Amino acid sequence: MTWINGQFQSSLPVSDRGLAYGDGIFETIVCINQKLHLWFRHWQRLQQGAKQLVLELPEQQTLLNWIEQALADKNNPSLAVVKIIITRGSGGRGYKCPEQPQPRTIITIHPWLEHNDNDYQQGISAIVCQTCLSLQPALAGIKHLNRLEQVLAAQELLANNCREGLMLECAPAANDTSAKKIVTEGVSSNLFFVSRGQLFTPEITYSGINGTIRSELLERAQALGIPLATGRYELQEILNADEVFFTNSIFGILPVSKISYQQGQNSRHYQQRDVSMQLAKSLNPELQRPCQFNTL
Amino acid sequence: MTWINGQFQSSLPVSDRGLAYGDGIFETIVCINQKLHLWFRHWQRLQQGAKQLVLELPEQQTLLNWIEQALADKNNPSLAVVKIIITRGSGGRGYKCPEQPQPRTIITIHPWLEHNDNDYQQGISAIVCQTCLSLQPALAGIKHLNRLEQVLAAQELLANNCREGLMLECAPAANDTSAKKIVTEGVSSNLFFVSRGQLFTPEITYSGINGTIRSELLERAQALGIPLATGRYELQEILNADEVFFTNSIFGILPVSKISYQQGQNSRHYQQRDVSMQLAKSLNPELQRPCQFNTL
Repeated sequence: MTWINGQFQSSLPVSDRGLAYGDGIFETIVCINQKLHLWFRHWQRLQQGAKQLVLELPEQQTLLNWIEQALADKNNPSLAVVKIIITRGSGGRGYKCPEQPQPRTIITIHPWLEHNDNDYQQGISAIVCQTCLSLQPALAGIKHLNRLEQVLAAQELLANNCREGLMLECAPAANDTSAKKIVTEGVSSNLFFVSRGQLFTPEITYSGINGTIRSELLERAQALGIPLATGRYELQEILNADEVFFTNSIFGILPVSKISYQQGQNSRHYQQRDVSMQLAKSLNPELQRPCQFNTL
Repeated sequence: MTWINGQFQSSLPVSDRGLAYGDGIFETIVCINQKLHLWFRHWQRLQQGAKQLVLELPEQQTLLNWIEQALADKNNPSLAVVKIIITRGSGGRGYKCPEQPQPRTIITIHPWLEHNDNDYQQGISAIVCQTCLSLQPALAGIKHLNRLEQVLAAQELLANNCREGLMLECAPAANDTSAKKIVTEGVSSNLFFVSRGQLFTPEITYSGINGTIRSELLERAQALGIPLATGRYELQEILNADEVFFTNSIFGILPVSKISYQQGQNSRHYQQRDVSMQLAKSLNPELQRPCQFNTL
């Protein structure tokens, strides 16, 4: 079931710092016909995470061997999701790291998630979450194991029977009332929007995760001649946009048909799909996800 | 070695959400002669954590039985540290919680940490950490498992060969340069300071942990007739103070003799110990820690 540093294991020592402090990073990667989708981007993000946390990674080839071994144990399914967790291992006194950390790389193989064609054709409904994303430049961008904000936001999604939600930056403590509502990303995805033919996505500088599909689209948009900007955008700009879509490494590009805001009192519907369809045609088939939207 | 929900175990399933997302809370409690020091405060904080994370706790008596069982396994040491981790257990899809979570309570017993008399007599040196504490009211106060900020700050302590450090609030993203340097706490402790006979401690509203000793001192200061205020205080106020001390559930009250700031270019020395000694006389002996300071 689980491989730790290349050894078949059923469980983890409770002394692991991944459990104690969330002291580690992770990736979830779609594997199609024994090929890891956008592996180099996942590896780049692992390297960035290791740099920010001062954490030692295994060699790239060692990690790939361990993944191959774990997949072989599942008879190499043609579609699967590989989850990698790399922790700082056990030890240290309190929060302090041990002098010679022995990191653990934990690999588990999960079933590919079936999609609902309707989500891609009609688009999904999203809420604006009450749970905000705190500003922490030292942790922004990387996929670390401190994810309670996402867990709390996902509880809101469950309560609203919603698949995704927009997460705003937390307002500064001193100045709550006049604070701008800056959108960072989705609960488990990045966010893009289109206004007058231009594509925008929030910068990931103070909070949020640098998604692999997000990075990929930054390049593909350029290749497709779609003008793209990154920056700090207010919720109102997204509500005024022509198109909105979410991206992640599992579902690819998923259009948004509706955003409910002001705690569900108001909503905005989106019908245009020009740019998102163009990008989805380029990317979604690689993840075996649909790219034909009903434009209604 | 480890007890999970009252069962003797050596390890934890890697599917546990405590590992995946830091989805849980913890406590470390000093046990002296089979008595848990300030148990009711630890239990109160567990309840607060469970409330904020919407997490189910075991019954108090069940938890106490499990702790007793774990201590008995160690032949009831007269001095020990009990660590409790309560996670949301396994399951759920992505960040979303399972419909019927099965929380895990993990209990481990650790040796009591010997202290250095000198730290209590002379006071300790502290730095001002570069790693800041992000503002997240939804998580403030509780002792949750998302502790990467403390891990990064502890790396600074190791690099500076320092036992403790002051952590400042992260500056708001938009307005870095003019932001005030607001002090929240120590890396693994709360912070108090004394100015003109009055005691101050930062409020724990946007970040930081409501320490059990901090809560206890808020009450004992009143009983001892020491005027006390909580609020948002700037670093400069701590540098201008007459006395500074840290508190936590393991070391009790530990005076500060020196704070280095501006990346070690400047430092402030503290010699007065009037209020900290008065409080330490009341509290430290309960933790078998010294309360006689050399006032130099």
